[in-house]
Amino acid sequence: MQWDQIFAKRASRMKASEIRELLKLLDQPDIISFAGGIPDPALFPAQAVAEATATAFAERGTTALQYSVSEGDARLRAWIAGQMAELGVPCGIENIIITSGSQQALDYLGKLLLSPGDTALVGWPTYLGALGAFNAYEPRYDKLDPDTNRDFNDYATAAQEAGGRVKFAYMSVDFANPTGRTMDRAARERMIDMADELDMALIEDAAYQSLRYDGEPIPPILALEIARKGSIDAARTIYCGSFSKTLAPGLRVGWVCAAKPVISQLVLMKQAADLHSSTLNQIVIDRVARDIFDDHVAKLRATYSARRDRMLAALEHHMPEGVSWTRPDGGMFIWLTLPEHMDGADLLARAVRDYRVAFVPGGAFYADGSGRNHLRLSFSLADDATIDTGIARLGELLRGAG
Amino acid sequence: MQWDQIFAKRASRMKASEIRELLKLLDQPDIISFAGGIPDPALFPAQAVAEATATAFAERGTTALQYSVSEGDARLRAWIAGQMAELGVPCGIENIIITSGSQQALDYLGKLLLSPGDTALVGWPTYLGALGAFNAYEPRYDKLDPDTNRDFNDYATAAQEAGGRVKFAYMSVDFANPTGRTMDRAARERMIDMADELDMALIEDAAYQSLRYDGEPIPPILALEIARKGSIDAARTIYCGSFSKTLAPGLRVGWVCAAKPVISQLVLMKQAADLHSSTLNQIVIDRVARDIFDDHVAKLRATYSARRDRMLAALEHHMPEGVSWTRPDGGMFIWLTLPEHMDGADLLARAVRDYRVAFVPGGAFYADGSGRNHLRLSFSLADDATIDTGIARLGELLRGAG
Repeated sequence: MQWDQIFAKRASRMKASEIRELLKLLDQPDIISFAGGIPDPALFPAQAVAEATATAFAERGTTALQYSVSEGDARLRAWIAGQMAELGVPCGIENIIITSGSQQALDYLGKLLLSPGDTALVGWPTYLGALGAFNAYEPRYDKLDPDTNRDFNDYATAAQEAGGRVKFAYMSVDFANPTGRTMDRAARERMIDMADELDMALIEDAAYQSLRYDGEPIPPILALEIARKGSIDAARTIYCGSFSKTLAPGLRVGWVCAAKPVISQLVLMKQAADLHSSTLNQIVIDRVARDIFDDHVAKLRATYSARRDRMLAALEHHMPEGVSWTRPDGGMFIWLTLPEHMDGADLLARAVRDYRVAFVPGGAFYADGSGRNHLRLSFSLADDATIDTGIARLGELLRGAG
Repeated sequence: MQWDQIFAKRASRMKASEIRELLKLLDQPDIISFAGGIPDPALFPAQAVAEATATAFAERGTTALQYSVSEGDARLRAWIAGQMAELGVPCGIENIIITSGSQQALDYLGKLLLSPGDTALVGWPTYLGALGAFNAYEPRYDKLDPDTNRDFNDYATAAQEAGGRVKFAYMSVDFANPTGRTMDRAARERMIDMADELDMALIEDAAYQSLRYDGEPIPPILALEIARKGSIDAARTIYCGSFSKTLAPGLRVGWVCAAKPVISQLVLMKQAADLHSSTLNQIVIDRVARDIFDDHVAKLRATYSARRDRMLAALEHHMPEGVSWTRPDGGMFIWLTLPEHMDGADLLARAVRDYRVAFVPGGAFYADGSGRNHLRLSFSLADDATIDTGIARLGELLRGAG
């Protein structure tokens, strides 16, 4: 049977990532991998989760195992609304839907906003998983660069010529994956101007928001827009949050906070797509968040920031001339820029074979496959000795490649 | 902001169901509702789930809270493969992907198979949630009726004239929602003939498969097709299973069992759409299934079959002339056919207002909105006295409407 002939047209956009396939091969004990972008499991609040599970049955009985509403647990949404208010986003629980991680939010937003041929504005580079989620809805991508003075209307004209319109700009705003960069306040304000001008939505991915190690927090774009327009229901910004980097990714709990017409449509979509996220997991996350969120995040910050510092120091020590890197204020990633002629994917093959060290080549994060002279390093999983050894090996590799 | 102008074209197909909105109003203590189609929470294995959660941390440590692979937990997939083999479907774990309930399987299969304008063959009536899931991918529906002698090629011609092709037939095979009917073996065999002739897929929804109260099990369509073709990887049938009716819906764990090319593409889709289903919930379901599945299902069968018998007896006693109903061998539903001139939606309004009894009007289950002279009753939640009183009230209503 020729399945390719039965698959929908969109399936051709959903291919195995070469990088992901390559990274699967890295699960060998003697390879030092800075490739993963996952939290350190040693820091998971396993005890709190175990207790909250017991409490869930004690407090809610068997409804903890029953079907529940598509918008999500009301108590958890109320806790999230409180957190959003602290970030400058006054809102009600009707402005919040629970999703199965913020990855599902990105999928649903692509589904909600993109007809085939519409344009999505994304960073060059951007989060690989956002491209994966949006690809299913067959968009055209255009390069979002808030630092250049490209005329806003130029985006609209190019989108029309391609047969669609600009539907949204997607941005990871704090300590972004893969670059570790944070969008400053002026750039956030400019995005609101741009969205108003182009009559488009803004998707604000705040997955790393809580993991700030230095400097003052910058208000979310959604907060800045509400400050201008008076109410969340007048805002174009769709905020995506997640417990995956703060509490536990394996429970798959995230949220979207946005204007009511957006949330209503997402609730219908979720009802049709998976009914609701796990009832029990939402109850557990609610309890754990209420009990330990701030203290737990403080602990994460202390650990991850020390690892970031160690990796920055090691890079300073081991990198050859011509290599530069970001100094993130939070998150899990440092982004290396190599001399133009170097190719991250080629280097990875040699790194694994000859130096037993791994990273993610930069090209994977570019919608057009450019950016090959970059590498992404994650410092979230490694102890000091591993960082020192791994970065020393990377330095040797790059000196050899110079 | 005019969100409607930014939403994708598909969003216009994703509307609030009038029925669902109406049913939300039924949550009043003096209304007897046969509308819900949900398991009885008193029968949930809460103790086993609580113990399995504790065991999960003891056995797997913090990886129970970590990101995991998109195809799902290997142990759980191995257990499911064993169950599938018992149903006549020899397969490996590479033929199985874990989904967040079988609702997510239906969404993914719509996404995988349907380009806008393609044809999906569905029963008239069919599962409301299947129509909801598929609608997002803008199909045309055609009426699947295995009992008529409509020429197979007639389906293909009609689909082509509508600008697409027939991609699949969707069937709930055992004790279907909403009718309670089971597709007999001859009809299943005929579906395979039809699928081969039309070069389409078959989606076999087996959500209620384990809940058989009478009669001999009929092999899944997938088993019959493997018997003909020699291997699951030569089969067109895509089998969707679920733990929602047997263990606990709130954990959101289901699966798809199919040929490897289908599973591979679904894994890519899931990676892009929500990364994976809850790690912890998969581990818990695996443990609970291994420990108690058969015994627990036997208990469910005993309880639900007694309720079915009670409702059938009450219908016999209270229904006026001209009303007929199905006698399901399992599942949760009985389907009433009323005299042609009656309208289930009108009756529901009167039933709630004047008789304090509720059901789902049949029209919701028809892709073309026909079938208004039907009602769906669920017997899964009601005790004997409630069934007797509720069906008596329904009888009064229908006699008054006659």
